[in-house]
Amino acid sequence: MGSVSPSLKELAARLQDDCVAAGLTVATAESCTGGAVAHAITSQPGSSRYYLGGVVSYSNAVKSGVLGVPADVLAVHGAVSAQVAIAMATGVRERLVSDLGVGVTGVAGPDGGSDDKPVGLVYVAVSDASGADVRRFHWTGDRRDNIRDSTAAALTFLVERAAAAAGAVHASRATGR
Amino acid sequence: MGSVSPSLKELAARLQDDCVAAGLTVATAESCTGGAVAHAITSQPGSSRYYLGGVVSYSNAVKSGVLGVPADVLAVHGAVSAQVAIAMATGVRERLVSDLGVGVTGVAGPDGGSDDKPVGLVYVAVSDASGADVRRFHWTGDRRDNIRDSTAAALTFLVERAAAAAGAVHASRATGR
Repeated sequence: MGSVSPSLKELAARLQDDCVAAGLTVATAESCTGGAVAHAITSQPGSSRYYLGGVVSYSNAVKSGVLGVPADVLAVHGAVSAQVAIAMATGVRERLVSDLGVGVTGVAGPDGGSDDKPVGLVYVAVSDASGADVRRFHWTGDRRDNIRDSTAAALTFLVERAAAAAGAVHASRATGR
Repeated sequence: MGSVSPSLKELAARLQDDCVAAGLTVATAESCTGGAVAHAITSQPGSSRYYLGGVVSYSNAVKSGVLGVPADVLAVHGAVSAQVAIAMATGVRERLVSDLGVGVTGVAGPDGGSDDKPVGLVYVAVSDASGADVRRFHWTGDRRDNIRDSTAAALTFLVERAAAAAGAVHASRATGR
């Protein structure tokens, strides 16, 4: 869409290089980034070699119905929570049958914030066969900045996890397991 | 992601205004645009008032497994076809339970083209309760241009169909049906 910022482009290119080299596939589950992670990934030529696809789960019905986020997790913790980010990442990895899954949920603003869940609060989770990890961010920019920074955080997390997964694959091959 | 081009921003703003006014919801199914339509839509503050979410179906497994595009339609017509665009639009509308669904499939390039399905060939379909329509485009730009132009085509088609659907809703209310 015109331009993906240079840093996002570099992150997406690195993720693609690492995943293709290691034979890893990726799927995305996005709420507050609304497709920006998928767009950054697919702006790279050749991204279909490792990127299977994703779900933009803007409504809670899509989070539960398409991604399989349990309704009680949404009810107890709220859509913007570490638990839902992990359930999104795990759900999209299982449903799209990828090696890595990323989940992003948060409040991009300017509306939708509360004392408990302020504008700029974002959770990013990555899931692979070994389990899932989650990171919490609190951005202070406007909606555009918050979406961009969340997208960069998701790509960075994927790059790190892909490197770890590639290392595990290599170690497994070296030991014959 | 930094910037959504002015024309995409205007199209997304108009779509949001029209859908919110008419009480219509929207879901997206994207292949070659890879999340760019969802990103343009969700870059607008308040888009959660009408946008339910979407699926980025980069792989054929996601087109069939998540969106329900029949395997024989993919086999007979190919992923880049009017039939698959319609099945994606209809599938995402049914699965996400929205009033309008859009499906985009094509060859963004630079790779993936053939004599039969050249780079720049893109099909955009819109589905609503009255049925589905599809449009064929053949862009001549680079990958970035083709993604942007396909995104604009999808938003334009949605704006037109939303206006028609809103008119039908109003006519129905006026006649008490």
